[in-house]
Amino acid sequence: MMFDVKSVKETFEIIEENFSGYNLGQEWVNIQSALGRIASKDVCANEDMPPFDRSSVDGYCVVASDTFGASESMPVQLELVGEVQMGEKPDFIVGRGKSAYVPTGGYLPEGADSMVMVEYSEDFGDGDIFLNKPAAPGNHIVYKGDDVKEGALVIKKGRRLRAQDIAVLAGLGYEKVKVFKKLKIGIISTGDEVIEIKSTPQGAQIRDINTYSIMALSQMMGMEAVSFGIVKDVYEYIESKVKESMEQCDITVVSGGSSMGTKDVTVKVIESLGKPGVLLHGIAVKPGKPTIVGKANGKAVIGLPGHPASAFMIFQVFVSKLAKWMESESENMSPFVEAIMDSNYPSNNGREEYLAVSLEEKGSGYISSPVFGKSGMISLMTQADGYIHISRGSEGLNKGQKVKVNLF
Amino acid sequence: MMFDVKSVKETFEIIEENFSGYNLGQEWVNIQSALGRIASKDVCANEDMPPFDRSSVDGYCVVASDTFGASESMPVQLELVGEVQMGEKPDFIVGRGKSAYVPTGGYLPEGADSMVMVEYSEDFGDGDIFLNKPAAPGNHIVYKGDDVKEGALVIKKGRRLRAQDIAVLAGLGYEKVKVFKKLKIGIISTGDEVIEIKSTPQGAQIRDINTYSIMALSQMMGMEAVSFGIVKDVYEYIESKVKESMEQCDITVVSGGSSMGTKDVTVKVIESLGKPGVLLHGIAVKPGKPTIVGKANGKAVIGLPGHPASAFMIFQVFVSKLAKWMESESENMSPFVEAIMDSNYPSNNGREEYLAVSLEEKGSGYISSPVFGKSGMISLMTQADGYIHISRGSEGLNKGQKVKVNLF
Repeated sequence: MMFDVKSVKETFEIIEENFSGYNLGQEWVNIQSALGRIASKDVCANEDMPPFDRSSVDGYCVVASDTFGASESMPVQLELVGEVQMGEKPDFIVGRGKSAYVPTGGYLPEGADSMVMVEYSEDFGDGDIFLNKPAAPGNHIVYKGDDVKEGALVIKKGRRLRAQDIAVLAGLGYEKVKVFKKLKIGIISTGDEVIEIKSTPQGAQIRDINTYSIMALSQMMGMEAVSFGIVKDVYEYIESKVKESMEQCDITVVSGGSSMGTKDVTVKVIESLGKPGVLLHGIAVKPGKPTIVGKANGKAVIGLPGHPASAFMIFQVFVSKLAKWMESESENMSPFVEAIMDSNYPSNNGREEYLAVSLEEKGSGYISSPVFGKSGMISLMTQADGYIHISRGSEGLNKGQKVKVNLF
Repeated sequence: MMFDVKSVKETFEIIEENFSGYNLGQEWVNIQSALGRIASKDVCANEDMPPFDRSSVDGYCVVASDTFGASESMPVQLELVGEVQMGEKPDFIVGRGKSAYVPTGGYLPEGADSMVMVEYSEDFGDGDIFLNKPAAPGNHIVYKGDDVKEGALVIKKGRRLRAQDIAVLAGLGYEKVKVFKKLKIGIISTGDEVIEIKSTPQGAQIRDINTYSIMALSQMMGMEAVSFGIVKDVYEYIESKVKESMEQCDITVVSGGSSMGTKDVTVKVIESLGKPGVLLHGIAVKPGKPTIVGKANGKAVIGLPGHPASAFMIFQVFVSKLAKWMESESENMSPFVEAIMDSNYPSNNGREEYLAVSLEEKGSGYISSPVFGKSGMISLMTQADGYIHISRGSEGLNKGQKVKVNLF
């Protein structure tokens, strides 16, 4: 079966079309363990936050109109009727001509409608308080429900939970939150030449880099990664491992075996798994042309290039997108920065390109330097902070040009 | 004891001076678990990577000079002397007038010095190969040590390990890497009004937000967070919890109890722990003026404001810096983006300010909108993507102004 090479845009469309709405399953987790997880349901407030009118300063509560005209030369004198204790609802009322001390966060007594900060008061200990600043109604008061109103939507389904979100859940008394299960990704390395990293290469063997880089990238993206080890380039071996992984995992990634070489069997294996099988074979992008995207039993299977640096970039760009669709992550703003190129970078490949760059802070912005070398050099990637997407037909980047750098 | 309020710059200096070179301890971890950990030693390559000269394409190896002048109309004809098997060192030599098939990643046979891609060949099955493109010496070959030379520094001490770094460690056969232990942070919430999140607030009680937001922020920064629960505003109780936390943890964070109110005892507790005690009390910054930084037995103790939004911001800005010094993280580029303000924001406080903003992608850049409200509103922080540092003396930000937004 022959496949046309797809553009980057077409690839993203194929991924969205086939994997959005994936049935990932949900689970309840304690909010202490919810960082980075994705909310699977909208969360609404079941009460007002704060649940009462509070002072946001240390000071004296007043009826605002009592303070109008107050100044240093002519303070107003009010009768002190009490002191609010933290955590307690005052049992007194503050009417006209009266006042009471309220600490930061304390309950605003009934009758009072404003606060004067302690800095603008003088207490001679005679039961009265002198205030030398006027206060408008509502001054330094956080009203019941000001932060969150009962019924308000506080966490939208599809949100990847950050510390702020967890803070709001805590404030509303939610000990648990319902999230999508973690995506489980199975990683298979193929290649007769690939050996365990603990082994010493003999002859023309090389160590299995891809298992570890893909595992780390998967962890970074919040997935649970499982290694299925190294498989020789034999159809039956690869088929059996891919089947094993696809039974257990949402995504299966096979690295190596996707170039046009004689031992390439990944495509055949994916075709054998069921419909629709291979969705695309080949993306018009550098690096990583020989990428495969497939689907069977609703699950995803990806063939990555064998070159560690190519596999790294393709995973970063396309599998992250796949994961976001499968996880129903709604707000998937990938952070990017604008930078100025420090050199020319020629590109005339007739295909799109992802160029790894390092970033250096300079003044209020960044300078970007291309990180490149011979194909497959993973050491160079350690210098990279992000990548630039160079569109097809572009002749490259010029020194001094402003570029958009997607951060790793 | 009285303390001057410090500027942000002075605060950073005090933190660096007192906590850089902190003795955090080291441990070996498997590279599968090393993502986000900080290397505690330089790592050098103990061998060349790759360990042999490899082809980076599927094609035919040649003596380059044999191919000079080759073209479609006049291909060169070379004798095929073998086929390189993946992972195996060829047992034949490719001299002048000869060639052999080499797959991508295959061992370059002795004698050959260049590769011609399979696309530029024709094989009529008669034992010879016809090549219609000339090849310069070194074409499509990755030489032994091209990626990493033996002895080269591949991971610098102080680097927070990313997927790329783990890839290089794998390639060099390192199953483990030596890292600094995770910073352990103890979290204490104080306040007579603060209750467990599972409880229903009575009177003027509020739930303990800070424990959860600080725990999540700590996890985000790669620390191990331990909650020591909620403590009433009583000197002996706070002292005992702070001591317990400081015995177990590198950093102890006490939230609440650092404003000038009647029940503030955190400063006294920190002073009681030993020298130097309180290093600063008060930072000229909004929000979060009543922040305390202390040190005893070499460990750090921080008093955060009680307001959840203030505590959040102060932790984000100052404790992240503290952690980086204590962890000896060398490359601490905090990601930021440039954005355009969507509105005016007046600021005339005589102190520096950290303004939380939301970001929206627009064209090739970002638009930033201030996220603000009454003091202590944590719900607004869920809309924030980062913060802007407004310097002292600035009169604020103008609509359309370019600003630097530090990302959360």
